[in-house]
Amino acid sequence: MTTHMQAEVEEIPAATARFLAAMGPAAAEAGAAIRARGPSLVATVARGSSDHAATYLKYAIELSAGLPVASIGPSVASVYHRRLKLDGAVCLGISQSGKSPDIVEMMKSAADAGALTLALTNVAGSPLAAAAGHALSLEAGPEKSVAATKSFVTSVAAGLLLLAEWQQDAALKAAVEALPDAFTRALACDWSPLADRLVRAQSLYVLGRGPGFAIANEMALKCKETSGLHAESYSAAEVLHGPAAIVQERFPVLALGVEDAALPGVIATAERLAGQGADVFLTAPGAKAPVRELPSVTGLHPLVAPLVLVTTFYAFIEALARRRGFDPDSPPHLNKVTETV
Amino acid sequence: MTTHMQAEVEEIPAATARFLAAMGPAAAEAGAAIRARGPSLVATVARGSSDHAATYLKYAIELSAGLPVASIGPSVASVYHRRLKLDGAVCLGISQSGKSPDIVEMMKSAADAGALTLALTNVAGSPLAAAAGHALSLEAGPEKSVAATKSFVTSVAAGLLLLAEWQQDAALKAAVEALPDAFTRALACDWSPLADRLVRAQSLYVLGRGPGFAIANEMALKCKETSGLHAESYSAAEVLHGPAAIVQERFPVLALGVEDAALPGVIATAERLAGQGADVFLTAPGAKAPVRELPSVTGLHPLVAPLVLVTTFYAFIEALARRRGFDPDSPPHLNKVTETV
Repeated sequence: MTTHMQAEVEEIPAATARFLAAMGPAAAEAGAAIRARGPSLVATVARGSSDHAATYLKYAIELSAGLPVASIGPSVASVYHRRLKLDGAVCLGISQSGKSPDIVEMMKSAADAGALTLALTNVAGSPLAAAAGHALSLEAGPEKSVAATKSFVTSVAAGLLLLAEWQQDAALKAAVEALPDAFTRALACDWSPLADRLVRAQSLYVLGRGPGFAIANEMALKCKETSGLHAESYSAAEVLHGPAAIVQERFPVLALGVEDAALPGVIATAERLAGQGADVFLTAPGAKAPVRELPSVTGLHPLVAPLVLVTTFYAFIEALARRRGFDPDSPPHLNKVTETV
Repeated sequence: MTTHMQAEVEEIPAATARFLAAMGPAAAEAGAAIRARGPSLVATVARGSSDHAATYLKYAIELSAGLPVASIGPSVASVYHRRLKLDGAVCLGISQSGKSPDIVEMMKSAADAGALTLALTNVAGSPLAAAAGHALSLEAGPEKSVAATKSFVTSVAAGLLLLAEWQQDAALKAAVEALPDAFTRALACDWSPLADRLVRAQSLYVLGRGPGFAIANEMALKCKETSGLHAESYSAAEVLHGPAAIVQERFPVLALGVEDAALPGVIATAERLAGQGADVFLTAPGAKAPVRELPSVTGLHPLVAPLVLVTTFYAFIEALARRRGFDPDSPPHLNKVTETV
């Protein structure tokens, strides 16, 4: 029997291809609008998995466009009723449903303050899309599992396409257009050695850097949401500032390495934690034993590589959830749309 | 026998009074420099506990000055060698030692990009202070415990004083000047019911909103660092977007409520998690049983109240660490200055 989550993860290559076929002109138009504005800042507004997509895009925009990116808590508008100075900003709102009232309120506040507003949402005509100057529809199709998967992947892909158009970056655009094929290869990577280690684990650290840190956030959330596993994400740099204290003998660690400038640092951190006795798994070659390598798709643009990793992970965690006795479609205590009070 | 950590926590009121007596003119001068610049953005650069101070100041600046605040990963300069557009920005670097090479490198990159740079550091003449246009010395005195306490509190107090001078906000300035007295009262608050619950716990959630979220980050780190307790912080809004899935019967939760606009939302989240069977402790009155109230100092300015809470917590966690069999001065696997690779 196939769970909704499993079907939705397997649909990631097709959903991304659908988005790319449908949204090219809209992405080009929105990218041109950002270029014309010449912003001094990008502000993001999102919650949950969508906020992990925003963190991914923060690193991508900083590294590619050289603009600072600020994550704005929706509560600034919805709870504290404070309008921010955002007249030189592009404000990017991300929400699968496009219905969270606090996200919509913060986007309206940004538009009132003079920001150029853009929405990434899976529901065309949603309140968030209606409130934004430009909206890209993710075209991921209905998502029945409470745990977002294909909508997360397409929201990051959409943001990267927007960035490629804005920056007129042909290499990044080609990398985004090749994503459906990369995702298909990612679904064939086998992380069962990690599953064997985690089937009875209570805690886990997931480490990454740059856009890989955003993916670490997303993976840690999914571990909690679907599998009752207290996973926590850290920047591979931050983990040595305190959190390493609880990494005792056999503590499991998943370190996300991709072929970019941060890889030597990730490898050094992985080896150091393994030296403390941790069971460390790394998604790249190059670390000394006892760090264990997990297979991954290689030869990718560094700004898409972490997104390809999360696709392998989604298939992995759906299976792990079932092995741990959970129904990945219906996590305890959760609903699909959370209205924040 | 007194640990270094205990002595340093008890010194918080005196250290803050020392800072205020010494640094008033420097804070006024730096505040006037920010006012003269009229920035469009504040960028923060920090790691570990200092990054929690930066998150606190992000909320305080957004709510008080109405400017967006972006946290910039030091790796943007130190690993990826990317210069950001920061000519309209104030860049605030925070580091107890002022020695972390990646923080210093990012500050130099910001200065080269035209930002007005300010450093908060406990070591006058440190590389970070030397690299900044303006530097405030925290005057916290030597910190021997690996876990930062008095330097964290004084760095937030310094940032708030700077904000009060910049905004010419007499109410905030008076609240900062009254901090030594509030800290003394905070040290008299007894959280032993929480300690009794946590003496054998494995996991904990710490929840907050606005500046209280920054304090939740700091508390969760200290639980790991000193007590081997896998505590994780969440915005009281975010926790219902997925992480609540692992909150089963008897799961311990510490919810930080202060007298501000976010309190009703924090109370609603606390009651909802208690309804799932969690053991929820709240630092404010107003929640229905079985949520349990922890004592706190009341009648404070909302932008200083969370900082006063952390002082109560520091005394609490130092004692809990010893009850759990740890030496709070010497956490496993950690050093005072972490050089990020």
